[in-house]
Amino acid sequence: MITSVPSLMSDISGVGRDRARGGYSRFVLTPAELELREWFGGEAARRSLDVEVDRNGVLWAWHSAGSSTGAVVTGSHLDSVPGGGAFDGPLGIATAFCAYDRLLNEGALGDRPFAIAAFPEEEGARFGVACLGSRLMTGAIDPDRARGLTDADGVSYAEALAGAGIDPRHIGPDPDRLKSLSAFVELHVEQGRGLIDLGQPVAVGDAILGHGRWRITVRGQGNHAGTTLMDDRRDPMVAAAAIVVAVRDLARQQPDARATVGRIQPVPGGTNVIASRVEVWLDVRHPSDEVTASLVARIAASASSLAASEGCTASVTEESLSPTVHFDASLRSSLCAALPGAPVLGTGAGHDAGVLGSHVPTGMLFVRNPTGISHAPEEHVEDDDADAGADALARCLAPLLRVAG
Amino acid sequence: MITSVPSLMSDISGVGRDRARGGYSRFVLTPAELELREWFGGEAARRSLDVEVDRNGVLWAWHSAGSSTGAVVTGSHLDSVPGGGAFDGPLGIATAFCAYDRLLNEGALGDRPFAIAAFPEEEGARFGVACLGSRLMTGAIDPDRARGLTDADGVSYAEALAGAGIDPRHIGPDPDRLKSLSAFVELHVEQGRGLIDLGQPVAVGDAILGHGRWRITVRGQGNHAGTTLMDDRRDPMVAAAAIVVAVRDLARQQPDARATVGRIQPVPGGTNVIASRVEVWLDVRHPSDEVTASLVARIAASASSLAASEGCTASVTEESLSPTVHFDASLRSSLCAALPGAPVLGTGAGHDAGVLGSHVPTGMLFVRNPTGISHAPEEHVEDDDADAGADALARCLAPLLRVAG
Repeated sequence: MITSVPSLMSDISGVGRDRARGGYSRFVLTPAELELREWFGGEAARRSLDVEVDRNGVLWAWHSAGSSTGAVVTGSHLDSVPGGGAFDGPLGIATAFCAYDRLLNEGALGDRPFAIAAFPEEEGARFGVACLGSRLMTGAIDPDRARGLTDADGVSYAEALAGAGIDPRHIGPDPDRLKSLSAFVELHVEQGRGLIDLGQPVAVGDAILGHGRWRITVRGQGNHAGTTLMDDRRDPMVAAAAIVVAVRDLARQQPDARATVGRIQPVPGGTNVIASRVEVWLDVRHPSDEVTASLVARIAASASSLAASEGCTASVTEESLSPTVHFDASLRSSLCAALPGAPVLGTGAGHDAGVLGSHVPTGMLFVRNPTGISHAPEEHVEDDDADAGADALARCLAPLLRVAG
Repeated sequence: MITSVPSLMSDISGVGRDRARGGYSRFVLTPAELELREWFGGEAARRSLDVEVDRNGVLWAWHSAGSSTGAVVTGSHLDSVPGGGAFDGPLGIATAFCAYDRLLNEGALGDRPFAIAAFPEEEGARFGVACLGSRLMTGAIDPDRARGLTDADGVSYAEALAGAGIDPRHIGPDPDRLKSLSAFVELHVEQGRGLIDLGQPVAVGDAILGHGRWRITVRGQGNHAGTTLMDDRRDPMVAAAAIVVAVRDLARQQPDARATVGRIQPVPGGTNVIASRVEVWLDVRHPSDEVTASLVARIAASASSLAASEGCTASVTEESLSPTVHFDASLRSSLCAALPGAPVLGTGAGHDAGVLGSHVPTGMLFVRNPTGISHAPEEHVEDDDADAGADALARCLAPLLRVAG
């Protein structure tokens, strides 16, 4: 059985559609993502792969082998941003199952264990920390902090895990598991225009831009919108708005930097209420971690000064920070050898492969996105390119599986 | 039995507290507001007043009388803004019950019917339209439009009414009821600093500033925050932020105008997502309705131009508009005669008394707020001032009740 990627993707095309925003909202451990986890289990069972849910809620579909070490793993994630596209995450899972079909068909599965993995909360869309599953596994986040993260409704990650039957007491570093892996290859839809411009369907990943998230809290004086004269106001919404414009202006002055405010929350948030506080979430990325730090420092200084001129205050809190990751050079050479002529591209997007990269040789493949748009309903992959991705993934995994465990 | 206002207020001081925002969130027909409606019923029953829920969900506590026309009514609302104070709304209900105690004790209840009324969704905090109950009663909003209004969770007003046992098919104009009323007096916490500056506990209301709500929809191109270069963006969040600053700047240039953005919603609203759309809610008030209209027109023109310079578009939709209301002159004279020496003040805040004013003689009393802050947890009324408010309300109602029905 060699399944086509589009047919696998169409099986989940109705799961987690977001009618309000368009696209998909498949937040980790909500009914939509749980339904995708069920689908993962079904696809594994259809192929007689053994499904394991590890202590961090990562799903593994295992092809048993003689050895228990040196496992070769591919996979991605099932969760999405709010109103995201169909491919960011699930394409890496669907192509993994299809690549397995090809490897089995060609008798290319060797003595090394092989697994398909799905990592929870890659987007950080529900609990605020991206790549939460891989960060927990690698010890990049304290399990107590992770347990205490809350979603917009005040539900903690511990409560969400428990609700899905995963014991939150056991989340945390899993060094034995990391040691048992010899390679992790993640296939992902490209989130830019590189492959469009090159006219190619598949690229090998080179590096992940350093990126981080900060929260800017702007405080002023809440009051009545009708009775408070303009000159008597200390309105944090006006200060926050000036800060949003400054973030863009400062990022523009820094070559190769990207800085974004995509989320903002005035408190209390009533139409006829001057806010008392505004939370502004800031996403900053640059190839140089030093430049990222200095840009964030300039943004923080500007925020304080803009807030002060409105009689408000602004404080900046780091929520997460990931340095630039260069993928394993030897694994990258192997991927390039398996895909002669494929371009090598970096990406501005974060991935579990980036987090795992400091413990396991990791690499990535990108599949062309004809709109160049991601994290939005317009994200797209042509059917032929999706299957080309599965073929490329199988060609990349085969030599890794051939190496003696 | 003459109850003190602070003791009545303390009975509900635990209802609907908002731990996240501070203060109270008592949205219409949610458990908190329903608990206050229960409390209203209990206070009415304790006084042998007959409770009626009319077709628009307005609560009435009736003191029966010989005549069925010429009713004198006092009251306010029970719902709050998000994270509002304890007094905005409930003070007008608690003082009404306490004024009734005083009138009964003094034998001042005459042949006219007397009622205490509580109007639903005065703040518009849940369904977006302020004074929704009184607007329905007076025909100022189409019942079909009201039924279709939705809250943040997508629940319609029709569903919320049905859930509380109120048949949504019957909401709408109630001309017979309006004709049966001879006066409506609403007591309210002052939402400014007028009485502080004058050193007085109670004022008679003069006029309500015209006010309206508009929604500015800014559309751009949603995309990935990490992979989209700064110069390739059409980011509606940057455009919306520039518009928020422009709203304040344009309002400042217009004497006596107030313009506020207290609510803003990027869609989809993810930290690592360039928004595709931002909804900006705008509140504008001015004593002259022509000035309000011209200010909103200038804001709309500025919004379009600021959006265009970001490669975005902006459109402005009117959500509600209330012209300046001058309270009934004859009723105002009667209130002033009952409270010699009380100052006469206008207000920038909207009230059900303003909506009812075009059909029934209406008037208002304001009670001193020592912080001058409203729609925020800092809103306050001293105990003595609260009781002074009930005394003043009783003194104002007594002569109205003495007039032959």
